[in-house]
Amino acid sequence: MGPYKFAESQALFERSKSVVPGAPNFGLGHYSIGSTAPAAPIYLDRSEGARFWDVDGNEFIDGMCAYGPMVLGYNNPVVEEAAAKQREQGSCTTLVGPVMVELAETLVDMVPIAEWAIFSKNGADPTNIAAMTARAATGRRKIVKVRGGYHGATPWMQETGNSGTIAEDQEQIINVRWNNVEQLEQVFTEHGDDIAGFISSAYHHPVFKDNQMPDNGYWGTVISLCKKYGAVSIVDDVRSGFRCHLGGACEYFGFKPDLICFGKALGNGYPISALVGTEEMREAVAQVFYTGTNFFAAVPMAAALATLKELQRIDGANQMIAKGERLRNGMMKAAEKHGHDLRVTGMPSMPYFRLANDETWPDFSQGTSSLNTGLHGRWISNCVQRGVYFLTHHNHFLSTAHTDTDIDEMIEIVDEAFGALNKV
Amino acid sequence: MGPYKFAESQALFERSKSVVPGAPNFGLGHYSIGSTAPAAPIYLDRSEGARFWDVDGNEFIDGMCAYGPMVLGYNNPVVEEAAAKQREQGSCTTLVGPVMVELAETLVDMVPIAEWAIFSKNGADPTNIAAMTARAATGRRKIVKVRGGYHGATPWMQETGNSGTIAEDQEQIINVRWNNVEQLEQVFTEHGDDIAGFISSAYHHPVFKDNQMPDNGYWGTVISLCKKYGAVSIVDDVRSGFRCHLGGACEYFGFKPDLICFGKALGNGYPISALVGTEEMREAVAQVFYTGTNFFAAVPMAAALATLKELQRIDGANQMIAKGERLRNGMMKAAEKHGHDLRVTGMPSMPYFRLANDETWPDFSQGTSSLNTGLHGRWISNCVQRGVYFLTHHNHFLSTAHTDTDIDEMIEIVDEAFGALNKV
Repeated sequence: MGPYKFAESQALFERSKSVVPGAPNFGLGHYSIGSTAPAAPIYLDRSEGARFWDVDGNEFIDGMCAYGPMVLGYNNPVVEEAAAKQREQGSCTTLVGPVMVELAETLVDMVPIAEWAIFSKNGADPTNIAAMTARAATGRRKIVKVRGGYHGATPWMQETGNSGTIAEDQEQIINVRWNNVEQLEQVFTEHGDDIAGFISSAYHHPVFKDNQMPDNGYWGTVISLCKKYGAVSIVDDVRSGFRCHLGGACEYFGFKPDLICFGKALGNGYPISALVGTEEMREAVAQVFYTGTNFFAAVPMAAALATLKELQRIDGANQMIAKGERLRNGMMKAAEKHGHDLRVTGMPSMPYFRLANDETWPDFSQGTSSLNTGLHGRWISNCVQRGVYFLTHHNHFLSTAHTDTDIDEMIEIVDEAFGALNKV
Repeated sequence: MGPYKFAESQALFERSKSVVPGAPNFGLGHYSIGSTAPAAPIYLDRSEGARFWDVDGNEFIDGMCAYGPMVLGYNNPVVEEAAAKQREQGSCTTLVGPVMVELAETLVDMVPIAEWAIFSKNGADPTNIAAMTARAATGRRKIVKVRGGYHGATPWMQETGNSGTIAEDQEQIINVRWNNVEQLEQVFTEHGDDIAGFISSAYHHPVFKDNQMPDNGYWGTVISLCKKYGAVSIVDDVRSGFRCHLGGACEYFGFKPDLICFGKALGNGYPISALVGTEEMREAVAQVFYTGTNFFAAVPMAAALATLKELQRIDGANQMIAKGERLRNGMMKAAEKHGHDLRVTGMPSMPYFRLANDETWPDFSQGTSSLNTGLHGRWISNCVQRGVYFLTHHNHFLSTAHTDTDIDEMIEIVDEAFGALNKV
């Protein structure tokens, strides 16, 4: 396959500029930062299984899965049938759908720490509710988080100094470094009587950087410190949920937090997120006020119920991990063959890629446009222009719809992309 | 019709208690506060047009329209066809649906102040983005809001002292009283150089209280003050959007804000919200970081596009206002006939009801259970138990699917409910 063209996407994007402000996110979706425009697709024609087609008619094997939500494949028949059945009855209505009860029961069955579940829309809803629950449970103010960890776009979770945020947003937030037990101990020693909770993903998956697993004993120490000082431990599993372990990523890494935030994969593309927690947290969460117009819509709940049951039936998390290992091994061989030092980090089902022999990556002094001009960026562009949709700066996602044949085709295209890189 | 029974709803609610914490909102949805349980439905069987049926088989003419989202009727064929067509192509995928461009163009066409539009999920997303945009545009910190106004559940918008909120959440929030120009002038005189924006609904629709229209000249003064002091004016039209005027409630009341937040009715039950704004706000909003997993899903956008076009085609806002006037007139006649002093406030398309001859309403010293034992609460209960779904404490919503026959049937049932009230 030769390099793709993206004229239709570009034309539509030009047209959109007058009515959608060109913010990093609003104009182009998640896609915007560090992507490879103009040599990348922007607008969708259709999607099916593990593939999508853009408005220029280019076909892609999807390495992003809608940034996580797509976990069983686009238009998965089991999920779509459940959603369609509920849709005929009603979705967002004046009453609650009975499916909410069954969905909560299913999460409580699947997730060992969960004794209850509540539902919302954005990934930032459970992280917000979790922080409020920790404060309600403890009567304290401070939330400790890991620098570079992403928990949604609410101002308190953002980087200090972002446009539109104010100092008060982060006045009670303490940032610590990932895997740094000494620093965490020091923070608890200094502020322990005012720390409401600690929030983090189960492993560290920042953007623009190699992802990092927890060191041996890291989470054991974190949970002990929380218990010792009476703080609430919160896992933000919005991105990694159901792609590490069906009981929550914490089960994969062998620890038990008080609260887990789920989102993304939960509804296979239907908008739903959830907070689950232990018995000890039940009273506190019940005191918190938080709601939204569409929180009780029944169709996303029916879709989520079908998604969870299907993931259980096919052992989805382990399937995606195995697929990820196949992809990683194949891609590393291809890199080696062409003399490149490819680093693959994070969970195999959510791999982060980086060409370590690109010494310019990431050079933010050149602005984000430089992301695509270096070796790493050009390699990613080469993949995209040949039909494997990857991003330069973000972890990727696999689904259970990626067949071994898809994975092998991805590896072949990655191999071609390395070849084309060396020819320039 | 005799009083309805709600045994199935109650049984399901009992079952839900162990897996969904009994918060005012999480357990029962919006429905929870001030409702009439056990003498009210909780769980949905199905919905169609302006009606729904609960799990006990009771039929209701819906006076709440899913708390606003349902504006063209449940399962509206035009909206459902547009959604189904998009669903076949893809919804939440790695790329953006082209429908986003057309939806933004349509909002810009429909809403006079709008030169651009951005999209999100919760109603609280545009209010959060609007506050951040005001801060980004001005470099200032303070947001002025109306006491009792609801702009979502993010802590800065909540009532002071709510569980899980901290003092910092509201440190830069100034509350003023609705329609109080003197107080607003004083606030601007004192803090004008640090006021980023003023946020309010176009008319005041708090819960538990008669809704209030803007006094003559109120909005003129508000907009002048904002302009004089360089603050951003924000209308939260999430609840009232497209039920007052298709160009935004501000057009109905004759003023021009800088930013308008839409939600609820925008997608006829599909989860989508939007922020629109003037040319002057374009640069500021583009600097703000804010996004969410499902923000770029194409099905809700296709549903919203169909909803807006259908509302335009049938002159939806004026239709709902006319239906609301018919309902109000009929209900007031029925009240008078039975010797009750019914007050109907707010927009006719979103009426708030209160029996002014109930001197105990609302007596919060008795807790919220008392809401249902007074005259007003018993009258609402009587309506619900005869097939008109009203709430005690919240404004109601009409849709274009409410036929004149539906409205007349509502009036008849309300009349019966008054009759039953007097017999006790």
